[in-house]
Amino acid sequence: MARLERIEAGFYRIPLPEVLTDSTHGAMRAFEIVTARVRDADGAEGVGYTFTVGRNGGAVHDTLAREIAELVVGEDADLIEALWRRVWWALHYGGRGGPTVLALSAFDTALWDLKAKRAGTALWRLLGGHDPRVPCYAGGIDLDLPLDALLRQTDANLARGFRAIKMKVGRPDLREDVERLAAMRAHLGGNFPLMVDANMAWTADQAIRAARAFAPHDPLWLEEPTIPEDVAGHARILREGGLPIAAGENLRSVWEFQALISAGGVAYPEPDVTNCGGVTAFMKVARLAEAFNLPVTSHGAHDITVQLLAACPNRSFLEAHGFGLDRFVGHPLRIEEGRAVAPDRPGHGVSFDWNALEPLRAT
Amino acid sequence: MARLERIEAGFYRIPLPEVLTDSTHGAMRAFEIVTARVRDADGAEGVGYTFTVGRNGGAVHDTLAREIAELVVGEDADLIEALWRRVWWALHYGGRGGPTVLALSAFDTALWDLKAKRAGTALWRLLGGHDPRVPCYAGGIDLDLPLDALLRQTDANLARGFRAIKMKVGRPDLREDVERLAAMRAHLGGNFPLMVDANMAWTADQAIRAARAFAPHDPLWLEEPTIPEDVAGHARILREGGLPIAAGENLRSVWEFQALISAGGVAYPEPDVTNCGGVTAFMKVARLAEAFNLPVTSHGAHDITVQLLAACPNRSFLEAHGFGLDRFVGHPLRIEEGRAVAPDRPGHGVSFDWNALEPLRAT
Ligand SMILES: [Mg+2]
Ligand SMILES: [Mg+2]
Repeated sequence: MARLERIEAGFYRIPLPEVLTDSTHGAMRAFEIVTARVRDADGAEGVGYTFTVGRNGGAVHDTLAREIAELVVGEDADLIEALWRRVWWALHYGGRGGPTVLALSAFDTALWDLKAKRAGTALWRLLGGHDPRVPCYAGGIDLDLPLDALLRQTDANLARGFRAIKMKVGRPDLREDVERLAAMRAHLGGNFPLMVDANMAWTADQAIRAARAFAPHDPLWLEEPTIPEDVAGHARILREGGLPIAAGENLRSVWEFQALISAGGVAYPEPDVTNCGGVTAFMKVARLAEAFNLPVTSHGAHDITVQLLAACPNRSFLEAHGFGLDRFVGHPLRIEEGRAVAPDRPGHGVSFDWNALEPLRAT
Repeated sequence: MARLERIEAGFYRIPLPEVLTDSTHGAMRAFEIVTARVRDADGAEGVGYTFTVGRNGGAVHDTLAREIAELVVGEDADLIEALWRRVWWALHYGGRGGPTVLALSAFDTALWDLKAKRAGTALWRLLGGHDPRVPCYAGGIDLDLPLDALLRQTDANLARGFRAIKMKVGRPDLREDVERLAAMRAHLGGNFPLMVDANMAWTADQAIRAARAFAPHDPLWLEEPTIPEDVAGHARILREGGLPIAAGENLRSVWEFQALISAGGVAYPEPDVTNCGGVTAFMKVARLAEAFNLPVTSHGAHDITVQLLAACPNRSFLEAHGFGLDRFVGHPLRIEEGRAVAPDRPGHGVSFDWNALEPLRAT
């Protein structure tokens, strides 16, 4: 038995290399990461993390350090499903969402890293193994960028090897969104995969109007047109708007994905391993999508997520985001001709430069 | 303008007078409360609180002290809807459930207390005013009590003035639940309002089987038969089990209530003002229930909730729970002939004995 000896939680505030903007979160200047390091009785270590766009990190850290550690130290680290349920139910009252699930996600990811390391295999192989070369897109967080800067950013992304790009929409005047999308489409050509992301800016009817206005410019998907709670609204937008809908970065459990998928409200389920419940929950969402004959895409944490999508025959694009965590990671994800490659190092392959992070520790 | 000058968050761990047991949380020996005191520029003060069954309090406190305070100090305390949305959206990423909503609930309750105090009126009048005498039941947390102790507890509740009682179900063997319910029904007589609460112990099919077995003993409602995420399951249990279903203590937003109500999954919506989003969200759930021709009941915090149900023409029973917070409250709720009476003091009428709480401060 791989007895869990220790969980160490870290909380860091990372300044962003550039200010990011979207329709909901406004201007983002820093993000938070909360790390979970687990160590078993043999000295083997696994690491996981979660992040926020600047708030709630303190609550996530408190949950990891105060609650989860007490609940699981001394247990068998290999029984991840059992540990997951133990934490979910122990924290259910007052938990069941938000910071609790982010903390659980980081912990769960660390357990999978540990399991794969102990097995001496890459996580994507442990999870089933499909194809390590995962199509990848650059996720721009660029709502407030002037059009010329948006096009320059696009050229830089092409130069970095990206062959698919997502841009933000949801400006106060829909005509501006349409103009920007049209300009991007003209810039990239007709077959280039180009997605748009509204970050919940609209009501269902506003979203339907936007989808119809965007359709001539052929976006691959329209992401988060409205609030995650409006399941019936998502189904209407998908049906009446005429565009595939991506959603999931704000869903916090397999059950929320099941409800949205069953209602016909999403074409591209988009779990985030750092906030949907970890590797355990991400893989269940991916398999659920497959059972519904849907592709699965992703949000956030591309370095770990590439391992998960590399195990999924129904994987669509991996999102590569611009939070700049690469500065603190041992082997940042490489993009080659539009594909990210899941490394074959044991575990998920992500290691942090703890010394570089130390000055950014938050309290 | 009633400028918000200060928010003070307190975190306390309160030993329970007796060990409480239910099907999900096992044995509970202490609960946590997190208090929010707001003060405006004129020196007027409002107070709110939330509680947990023993975990997550640290995260709730962190959210109040670190995030909410920073977001709202300096704003107009009277614009509660505006402040609610500001906090909801600022904490949405990484929030949207769990500790975040408990913290928001405590803050929102404090704002309503302040508003009513400044208006010089009781909260139940400010919210519309219906009837201060609210039918009330004793919520037993008694799954593991031997039958004779359960009956003794029942007699004590009758002597305290209760004219309605809820008992726990969800023991490993359904026949034990049925026997205990039958004994309680025989003890209380045919017309006595008697409810049962399963605390999410079952799958939908187990719940249907239990509901059918309970039906001859005529419980007024069956509460939380399964997990809150299973909306379709609730609808099946209600339809096929043949008993009215109560649910809501684990729903964290008006939208979650809307989904469950719209699906026909609940007969007695049961919001908890300390975890559904505060007074603002509780009242929206109550009005939503009325629009669907449903009664509204409640969970937790009976001292504040009596004010809310006293404003609702569709109010059903108020839950009076046994957490023993009365020791720390200025004027504990009084029960007379089965009814709790909303006091006419300005605000919600609950004041804490801060000196008595001080030794129980948690860190
Ligand atoms: Mg997005
Ligand atoms: Mg209950």
